[in-house]
Amino acid sequence: MSHNTFGHLFRVTTWGESHGPSIGCVIDGCPPGLALSAPEIQAALDLRKPGTSKFVTQRREPDSVRILSGVFEDDRTDGPRTTGAPISLVIDNVDQRSKDYSDIRDKYRPGHADFTYDAKYGFRDYRGGGRSSARETACRVAAGVVAQKVIDHIFPGVVIRGCIVQIGASEIDRAKFDWAQTTQNPFWSPDADAAKAFEAALERARKNGSSLGAMIEIVASGAPAGLGAPVYGKLDAEIASAMMSINAVKGVEIGAGMRAAALSGEENADEIRIKNDKPHFLSNNAGGVLGGISTGQDIVARFAVKPTSSILTPRKTITRDGAETEIVTRGRHDPCVGVRAVPVGVAMMALVLADHALRHKAQCG
Amino acid sequence: MSHNTFGHLFRVTTWGESHGPSIGCVIDGCPPGLALSAPEIQAALDLRKPGTSKFVTQRREPDSVRILSGVFEDDRTDGPRTTGAPISLVIDNVDQRSKDYSDIRDKYRPGHADFTYDAKYGFRDYRGGGRSSARETACRVAAGVVAQKVIDHIFPGVVIRGCIVQIGASEIDRAKFDWAQTTQNPFWSPDADAAKAFEAALERARKNGSSLGAMIEIVASGAPAGLGAPVYGKLDAEIASAMMSINAVKGVEIGAGMRAAALSGEENADEIRIKNDKPHFLSNNAGGVLGGISTGQDIVARFAVKPTSSILTPRKTITRDGAETEIVTRGRHDPCVGVRAVPVGVAMMALVLADHALRHKAQCG
Amino acid sequence: MSHNTFGHLFRVTTWGESHGPSIGCVIDGCPPGLALSAPEIQAALDLRKPGTSKFVTQRREPDSVRILSGVFEDDRTDGPRTTGAPISLVIDNVDQRSKDYSDIRDKYRPGHADFTYDAKYGFRDYRGGGRSSARETACRVAAGVVAQKVIDHIFPGVVIRGCIVQIGASEIDRAKFDWAQTTQNPFWSPDADAAKAFEAALERARKNGSSLGAMIEIVASGAPAGLGAPVYGKLDAEIASAMMSINAVKGVEIGAGMRAAALSGEENADEIRIKNDKPHFLSNNAGGVLGGISTGQDIVARFAVKPTSSILTPRKTITRDGAETEIVTRGRHDPCVGVRAVPVGVAMMALVLADHALRHKAQCG
Amino acid sequence: MSHNTFGHLFRVTTWGESHGPSIGCVIDGCPPGLALSAPEIQAALDLRKPGTSKFVTQRREPDSVRILSGVFEDDRTDGPRTTGAPISLVIDNVDQRSKDYSDIRDKYRPGHADFTYDAKYGFRDYRGGGRSSARETACRVAAGVVAQKVIDHIFPGVVIRGCIVQIGASEIDRAKFDWAQTTQNPFWSPDADAAKAFEAALERARKNGSSLGAMIEIVASGAPAGLGAPVYGKLDAEIASAMMSINAVKGVEIGAGMRAAALSGEENADEIRIKNDKPHFLSNNAGGVLGGISTGQDIVARFAVKPTSSILTPRKTITRDGAETEIVTRGRHDPCVGVRAVPVGVAMMALVLADHALRHKAQCG
Repeated sequence: MSHNTFGHLFRVTTWGESHGPSIGCVIDGCPPGLALSAPEIQAALDLRKPGTSKFVTQRREPDSVRILSGVFEDDRTDGPRTTGAPISLVIDNVDQRSKDYSDIRDKYRPGHADFTYDAKYGFRDYRGGGRSSARETACRVAAGVVAQKVIDHIFPGVVIRGCIVQIGASEIDRAKFDWAQTTQNPFWSPDADAAKAFEAALERARKNGSSLGAMIEIVASGAPAGLGAPVYGKLDAEIASAMMSINAVKGVEIGAGMRAAALSGEENADEIRIKNDKPHFLSNNAGGVLGGISTGQDIVARFAVKPTSSILTPRKTITRDGAETEIVTRGRHDPCVGVRAVPVGVAMMALVLADHALRHKAQCG
Repeated sequence: MSHNTFGHLFRVTTWGESHGPSIGCVIDGCPPGLALSAPEIQAALDLRKPGTSKFVTQRREPDSVRILSGVFEDDRTDGPRTTGAPISLVIDNVDQRSKDYSDIRDKYRPGHADFTYDAKYGFRDYRGGGRSSARETACRVAAGVVAQKVIDHIFPGVVIRGCIVQIGASEIDRAKFDWAQTTQNPFWSPDADAAKAFEAALERARKNGSSLGAMIEIVASGAPAGLGAPVYGKLDAEIASAMMSINAVKGVEIGAGMRAAALSGEENADEIRIKNDKPHFLSNNAGGVLGGISTGQDIVARFAVKPTSSILTPRKTITRDGAETEIVTRGRHDPCVGVRAVPVGVAMMALVLADHALRHKAQCG
Repeated sequence: MSHNTFGHLFRVTTWGESHGPSIGCVIDGCPPGLALSAPEIQAALDLRKPGTSKFVTQRREPDSVRILSGVFEDDRTDGPRTTGAPISLVIDNVDQRSKDYSDIRDKYRPGHADFTYDAKYGFRDYRGGGRSSARETACRVAAGVVAQKVIDHIFPGVVIRGCIVQIGASEIDRAKFDWAQTTQNPFWSPDADAAKAFEAALERARKNGSSLGAMIEIVASGAPAGLGAPVYGKLDAEIASAMMSINAVKGVEIGAGMRAAALSGEENADEIRIKNDKPHFLSNNAGGVLGGISTGQDIVARFAVKPTSSILTPRKTITRDGAETEIVTRGRHDPCVGVRAVPVGVAMMALVLADHALRHKAQCG
Repeated sequence: MSHNTFGHLFRVTTWGESHGPSIGCVIDGCPPGLALSAPEIQAALDLRKPGTSKFVTQRREPDSVRILSGVFEDDRTDGPRTTGAPISLVIDNVDQRSKDYSDIRDKYRPGHADFTYDAKYGFRDYRGGGRSSARETACRVAAGVVAQKVIDHIFPGVVIRGCIVQIGASEIDRAKFDWAQTTQNPFWSPDADAAKAFEAALERARKNGSSLGAMIEIVASGAPAGLGAPVYGKLDAEIASAMMSINAVKGVEIGAGMRAAALSGEENADEIRIKNDKPHFLSNNAGGVLGGISTGQDIVARFAVKPTSSILTPRKTITRDGAETEIVTRGRHDPCVGVRAVPVGVAMMALVLADHALRHKAQCG
């Protein structure tokens, strides 16, 4: 039982605060012999890091990762490899600017965890949100790289991708969905036209000191049928937990998702045929999961990210001592935190699948 | 790591198949000294049991629960009390009618877990869905009664209630929301008019051999601020996992939920004032949770239940041997499994809160 | 975290009190497809059950086990097989005679857990020791049968055996050690002469209303090198915990054990040669474990069982209310609880190895 | 399930290899508000660190610890305090001298984990034993300081001390036992005369390039009755696992320990009287634990540490490729690793008690 650990056999324990000296994680349970080096992790971190466009926080963090353990380069192997021992990753914080946050020491920012941390612990590291900051998600992205290697090792061919399908009132057109587009715009939009709408909406929000919510879609393709487990270890239950644990997420759905409430039995259940000698589903309302176990179709999860609560409009709040007041949060923030949540969602899907791959191997491999 | 166990300190391990001799659960971690007797658990089971109206499965199960351990009636105590030892509950299966299911031995029912269980285990108990049957949820409801007692013991005053806010195309009118109504109709509808619409829709579905999805809302009122935990043990992440683990659930949301994607920062963050000397939020888009920790407001979760896939219209499928075929599922099923999911959702909320109450006490109590 | 669960991937949760209606366990994580039927479990239980000779408790318990879930006999399989779902085993208590224990309701028996349970829980099921009774170990033996099948499935050829090497002042002669002898006398003695000495010593103890301690040795032969794990999951650390968790055990050692304190480096480290193209150790002071991982040699554990504290000599004690008094424990008890601990030790070794076999498969398989 | 994590609610995850850049640990579950600073941890590390006398390894490691997270100094608090977030501790390796070990790259050192790591992982970090090195225990000692603070917070007055009661053939005289002596000699001997005998024996071993085993005793005084838990979470079972997980430990006993095998029921069970209005035991064969729960007496554990296998006498072994050879281990090693195991044993006892203190609070607090 650990509040800062994710996973059962592929376990990631993260630590660190937004404005402490460093953040990091320890990855335990990784199979031995996998090629792993810091630059590979760095490449993934660079996709999430702050300061990459005007639509994400202007905090300047190089997010340089170091591997402190669990990897060894024997002269008999071709480059560094995992040894089966815990992998310790550390990322130093560089651009903390703690003074930016001094005025939130005594006031609770609405929509943030300031009030709830004080309620729970009687005390909080208020610098940049401390432990509740989305800075923690850098560790998830780093661990996700290792998770992907574990998946590749056990079930080669699984591809996990993420995109944004909605920002504020703008949604993508499913007819124009193209994964290749997601790397061509700063919003991970799979629809080039929607990317323009996203940009316009965010530009407006940014100028107004406002912010917008977003809907992220994560798809894992190529996973075999039979991955997952019944009852409380269901693949979709763990995806739900994984995505909901990302900062600012308020809802998660699989396949038809919330829309399933409005369907009839005929519309919903995916019929099955044989194609190329393999089971072939005629639709994917299940989102690739039945009874908590994968069907072999795409595993499709979507999650809603609320607009960041750090906005320039004064908001009613209270002080730590219970006095009514107002607050404007002047930090360097993202007008749409959903944008940086895409690589985090991809990483969380990888963590769930890697963990389930090991669990499957243990019981049924 | 256990696929059939829910919780960390208040742990429930369920076992049993739909058509085996019995189902049951073991509850570990319960504090000692709590009054607990079988009739109290029975009362909750009776709310979920099959055969109570024509809108739920006609299987006739008395669902009589026996307590086999963990409770002792000393003549110095006023009735039986928990001892701190594991509580074993057993419910015998009575009306299995295994022959009803003999034709699904070789065919996969679309929308069910038949295919995925075979893909995972190479083998399955096909009688009534075996382990994947919703019959397992009776154990959740039984355990939920014990969980509620744990909550009462640590944080008296927490009330957990559930209702249906949508069936198929029919939704409730929030202006007419009244908890008292939920026990006045067989659909847990908090809106008396919507109950009539639900009835009409379900009657139509039942006659057509069809089925409908539903949206359930679970609300926990009276929980203190400060319950929950950061990062991977977030209250909302565990609620998401708990609800998604219920059979047929495809999406879970907290507070504003999926709708948060469309909001601006001004609309979303709940402002705070002081009322009766206590923090008072002017809205509850957060659904009672910020940073994974409770705010003291109502904790509000909603989940979508897909329509049961057991319908009378023939559906395309394949056999275990890979031949294309069709199937009609003639079992005794619920036209809307969402109806019986309400007490299950209430129980799962209780399990999450009881577990977090113990975890909170350990670290911060 | 569960006080009543043993194991990580092969998990056994036991429940039940000495004088409740039943005892039982739930086994989770078992691979699917293993042949398993109640008579196989029964055979192991019969080795441990009470009333088999005058040297063990005269309580008459048939210890009839029923399998309530997790096993299914498809007409396509040859007999019942595990499905991968949790296996629920139940054994009804028959000969409780609760009245025997009525005088211990208010007095603490020295050497028993009466005082400590009250200190912890403020309350206890005093009938026959309640949860602290060795009756719980019947469930370990039952689960051990399933564990052995898991080991056979993953690492065929592992044989686990147990014997008594000391009772009171009598020890076996290692030169006469013969596993075949252990089933030829009621004391699991591997030395026929020592068996006679054990009998004489126990007969004396029984007549005096006294009791004796014992030393049990458990040996697992045929386990491959490489089983186990570093640091906190060490094979020997988990064996130590497993054996120490058995009622009345006060010490556990591996290989040279406590004697290692008196050795020099030259005497202790087992040298290695090659024999039949395989690593061959010239001695086994390590007891088959180095760095927490098996060497491929015999895994050798020994544990000391204290004499039962239920004796006919009056002993000084206190009442629940803090008054000084004396007590004589008149229950039907074993003059040497160590005798019945042998099958329990074998079962615990099987639980540890089965769990580690699954863990090994997950990470390194 | 994590091989590198100790504890359930007070959880310590260690990482790092003997000759990697750093070692460290993450402590999760610590209550908030406890005063904690690096110098306090440093003081404990200094007791274990290498190079302090000629009887321990001459490796020169300053073992300087840094706290990277989980502690915050608010200007409203008196010094840095734990926040409830994970505490990350890092100790840099300074004096690795990797070249010392180059000749063990291909040969297995008898008595070390070289062979078993290769058997398990197919690959190992051979520099100084890599992950299997006792260097890992520095993290245990560091974490033990935090654990002691948790114990002080929940059950003030618990004092944990350790000593050596035997080195090779020399044992202490119990009549001369004096805790004050343990800090007056480099062997933690509670008997000043035995310290001289230990010195003579070790000096001889050192000159011969040999090594000696030792017996360590750890005593926790002042723990309340009622700490611990039944069945698989027994206090003594977890102490056994904790101590056996320390490098080179081959046996663990509680109270009368292995000697209990030779006792009669009259000799063994500790009688109870009332003294100063509290239960008072007339002896402590139980070692402070009955039924896995503390009695309020001293909790007494002893463990045997084998002599280090790194000795200057050539030993028969094999190469990685299966050829027979000999090896002399020339590294800078301790002639008696038991000496440095004393603070580690103290730390492990603290980890067990802190974890159980939190677990007790959760269920029974």
